[in-house]
Amino acid sequence: MAQPERIAVLGAGSWGTTFAKVLADAGNDVALWARRPQVAQEINETRRNGSYLPGIELPERLRATDDAAEAVHAAEVVVLAVPSQTLRENLAGWQPLLPPEATLVSLAKGVELSTLKRMSQVVGEVADVPMEQVAVVSGPNLAKEIAAGQPTATVVACPDEERAVALQKACFTPYFRPYTNTDMVGIEISGACKNVIALACGIAAGLGFGHNTMSSLITRGLAETTRLGVALGADPMTFAGLAGLGDLVATCSSPLSRNRTFGERLGSGETLAQAQEAAHGQVSEGVKSCSSIRQLADRHGVEMPITDVVHRVCHEGLEPGPATAELLGRERKAE
Amino acid sequence: MAQPERIAVLGAGSWGTTFAKVLADAGNDVALWARRPQVAQEINETRRNGSYLPGIELPERLRATDDAAEAVHAAEVVVLAVPSQTLRENLAGWQPLLPPEATLVSLAKGVELSTLKRMSQVVGEVADVPMEQVAVVSGPNLAKEIAAGQPTATVVACPDEERAVALQKACFTPYFRPYTNTDMVGIEISGACKNVIALACGIAAGLGFGHNTMSSLITRGLAETTRLGVALGADPMTFAGLAGLGDLVATCSSPLSRNRTFGERLGSGETLAQAQEAAHGQVSEGVKSCSSIRQLADRHGVEMPITDVVHRVCHEGLEPGPATAELLGRERKAE
Repeated sequence: MAQPERIAVLGAGSWGTTFAKVLADAGNDVALWARRPQVAQEINETRRNGSYLPGIELPERLRATDDAAEAVHAAEVVVLAVPSQTLRENLAGWQPLLPPEATLVSLAKGVELSTLKRMSQVVGEVADVPMEQVAVVSGPNLAKEIAAGQPTATVVACPDEERAVALQKACFTPYFRPYTNTDMVGIEISGACKNVIALACGIAAGLGFGHNTMSSLITRGLAETTRLGVALGADPMTFAGLAGLGDLVATCSSPLSRNRTFGERLGSGETLAQAQEAAHGQVSEGVKSCSSIRQLADRHGVEMPITDVVHRVCHEGLEPGPATAELLGRERKAE
Repeated sequence: MAQPERIAVLGAGSWGTTFAKVLADAGNDVALWARRPQVAQEINETRRNGSYLPGIELPERLRATDDAAEAVHAAEVVVLAVPSQTLRENLAGWQPLLPPEATLVSLAKGVELSTLKRMSQVVGEVADVPMEQVAVVSGPNLAKEIAAGQPTATVVACPDEERAVALQKACFTPYFRPYTNTDMVGIEISGACKNVIALACGIAAGLGFGHNTMSSLITRGLAETTRLGVALGADPMTFAGLAGLGDLVATCSSPLSRNRTFGERLGSGETLAQAQEAAHGQVSEGVKSCSSIRQLADRHGVEMPITDVVHRVCHEGLEPGPATAELLGRERKAE
């Protein structure tokens, strides 16, 4: 077991709360910041986060607060568990509070709309720290299954291998098995693109298609993700790993995935506005990321036909039916 | 549209009947051989194969027979749709009937127990034809979804690219999209190994594990399949394609998959004999293949931890519970 560390997790949604539980179960002292005081209070008083993780008891070593300064005080690791498109704004507010040597870990998966930057790039820039201090965690990690103690594996990536190993130790439990990696580009591009492919799988499911279609979309989706990642300098092997293939399969196949569920609504004939309303006013991460990823692909001359169709369905009024036929291709060729 | 060809499909199980339907829908004259005369009669009189494809109407261009000589007479393509461990014996009986120039297509997925040969090797040897005449078809192809006209893609592989293209034309329909490939080793090793990984996923599901665990098993399963294939001379890219990743995801995630269902029974505490009884006396393909694949891996010095555990559960009495814990690994390391 590693020495107990002081770790802050900023964001008490389902993944933030679950990862805080993992860190506490691994023996660390964890402070979980919640935006809403009543969520922090509920966690401290009842050991529950009923809105995001109903039925899960949280460990004693995890305490919650709505005061970010208190949460990050003297923390060796600060985990950022807020959505990708609001990370910049949130982090700008927290920046003056951060211990200068802390490892900053991003759990967000996306590419920033305005700048086309990966999340670690946003973190390095806004926190004004060297990239060696920035890490990401990504893998086949459906929060509710991990919170229930089901075994899974994940990838902890950081350009500084020593920090990656330290973070790996900090989140190693019998049910959560982290592997280290230094390929930030590959891990982050995988994480951003999988939400878009999950939308495509949801659209296909909403149209009534089965496992063959889903498996074809996953296969071609991973191929276009790999093309983009390699153009950006990633190691192609990363995409065959847990944060690439593993996360993609989990997200595309699970009814627990928000992106897949959102896509199903679009595929079954709902408009973006209707699907958004059903999702408590939120569009899923992939709805935003498909635009920034498409721009990134255009800039680097990479063909991403699935991302392109998802973008046209979400933002240009393309009908999902003909769109899916288009995804399956029309010409006879070699694989 | 291609010129109509005379095509024989030998074996009227669910995949044989479905592929015969695809070939007929693509405009060919198809003769489907069924072992049991009453199955041939049912197909010809009612356009149905109620035992294997309930509810599916078969096209007029498909006629059935229980006479193999009649089925293969003057056929340009002969499709072998019998189980892998009986292919040798069946084909030996048909060999004298085969038109000498016909392309022989194997739909079976496995590695022969006694010889550790791939199916195309068995076909070439028993039919006594050059390997350039032997082809395989493999992809995310759950028979019942294809029979229902749901769109999917597949891979048609043959060492002779011209024959691969001819076969591609012969099975090209609006709902079935074949891509050509010449990497027989990669396609066949993918097809054999995916049944074993699907057994592992079924065992995990039977133990109550969810999508994270399944996705980790798929990721690591594809990695060990790739290692074996590359050791045997395959192109590593094949495993990322439709017959590798695509077929693996379809088989592991679908409740229609026999191997997954068989594994679920083992995971939920049934013995091999009980699971076999529930499957009408048959063990699933992966139960046999795990032994031949493990031997092949041993011979080439390749580590295949998932295949090894599946073999120990199926044939050496290992308890599935501790076995799964073992699959998730115990040590901290780089990915």
